[in-house]
Amino acid sequence: MPFVRIDLPAATSSEAVAAVSDAVHQALVQAFNVPPDDRFQAIGRRAADEIICAPEYLGVRHSARIAFIQITCAPGRSLDMKKALYAAIAAGVAQRGGFESADVIINLVETARENWSFGGGIAQYAL
Amino acid sequence: MPFVRIDLPAATSSEAVAAVSDAVHQALVQAFNVPPDDRFQAIGRRAADEIICAPEYLGVRHSARIAFIQITCAPGRSLDMKKALYAAIAAGVAQRGGFESADVIINLVETARENWSFGGGIAQYAL
Amino acid sequence: MPFVRIDLPAATSSEAVAAVSDAVHQALVQAFNVPPDDRFQAIGRRAADEIICAPEYLGVRHSARIAFIQITCAPGRSLDMKKALYAAIAAGVAQRGGFESADVIINLVETARENWSFGGGIAQYAL
Repeated sequence: MPFVRIDLPAATSSEAVAAVSDAVHQALVQAFNVPPDDRFQAIGRRAADEIICAPEYLGVRHSARIAFIQITCAPGRSLDMKKALYAAIAAGVAQRGGFESADVIINLVETARENWSFGGGIAQYAL
Repeated sequence: MPFVRIDLPAATSSEAVAAVSDAVHQALVQAFNVPPDDRFQAIGRRAADEIICAPEYLGVRHSARIAFIQITCAPGRSLDMKKALYAAIAAGVAQRGGFESADVIINLVETARENWSFGGGIAQYAL
Repeated sequence: MPFVRIDLPAATSSEAVAAVSDAVHQALVQAFNVPPDDRFQAIGRRAADEIICAPEYLGVRHSARIAFIQITCAPGRSLDMKKALYAAIAAGVAQRGGFESADVIINLVETARENWSFGGGIAQYAL
């Protein structure tokens, strides 16, 4: 059910895009108990003037190589699960994708389970 | 009021993009009673490595030709209306846009009516 | 905390993109009391067939040169603050970015403060 939008710098290679995609998904599987096949992601490569991030916020310094991760998902995960998710995404994107952990910016948008169709025009979670 | 993001494969022709756009909008008009002129859509064409979808989830098989439809809209539609919307979108995108119905992935993000401005800096739904 | 998606016509120059980006951020700082360094934006340039807007809705006429502004932010701002935000964004994007105020379409998606990580895998607003 998560639908993930990932925005990355235009120069990101196919290998690095795949690494980021994998890292985000594995974090969802591990921290949010998402089924491995529940994977839906739209990735955008953006020019330098299309990813805007302040150089520093809340004591975290940012380079120009930013990864925005926006996850639309079901409500109800605990704060501990969310903290575990953020940590796993940032660590994975850093280790596999070659980004700085500080440059991984995440937000969640929670929406009801009946608000999803996974193909065929069916509300699979609200039958 | 719906604001619709549609993500499609890079090779999608202008004609197919228009067909998908029309199909989604007509489904909103029919199933959600959206006024015909209440149409706001941002469409993205994405490279093969930028649309990620598992080959199968919940028994629905997916090809590489995926259409992601994310609809930000007002809260309060019934489950029956949502089911009718998903069915109408999937059928329309398949019939008009040449996608497989199974490849049409939809989610709704509901947000309050005061959270919208339709131009001129006015909160038209919260005057 | 706001994460802002801005969609603009493909022909928008780097100068105009920067002007729109600045205008939206300054409006958030002024009307929503967002810290000046709390700035996270993903901007998309879109082809003519990728920005769809009806010619007129609610008495507001739209040209083909549309700016979609979608702001994911914390809940809790008052209606007056939201009205002030819309007015400030539309005025700023018009004055600085060269758009018509009528062509600035805005929506807010509110999400909890614990739903954010601003780098380093930390839930900075939910420690």
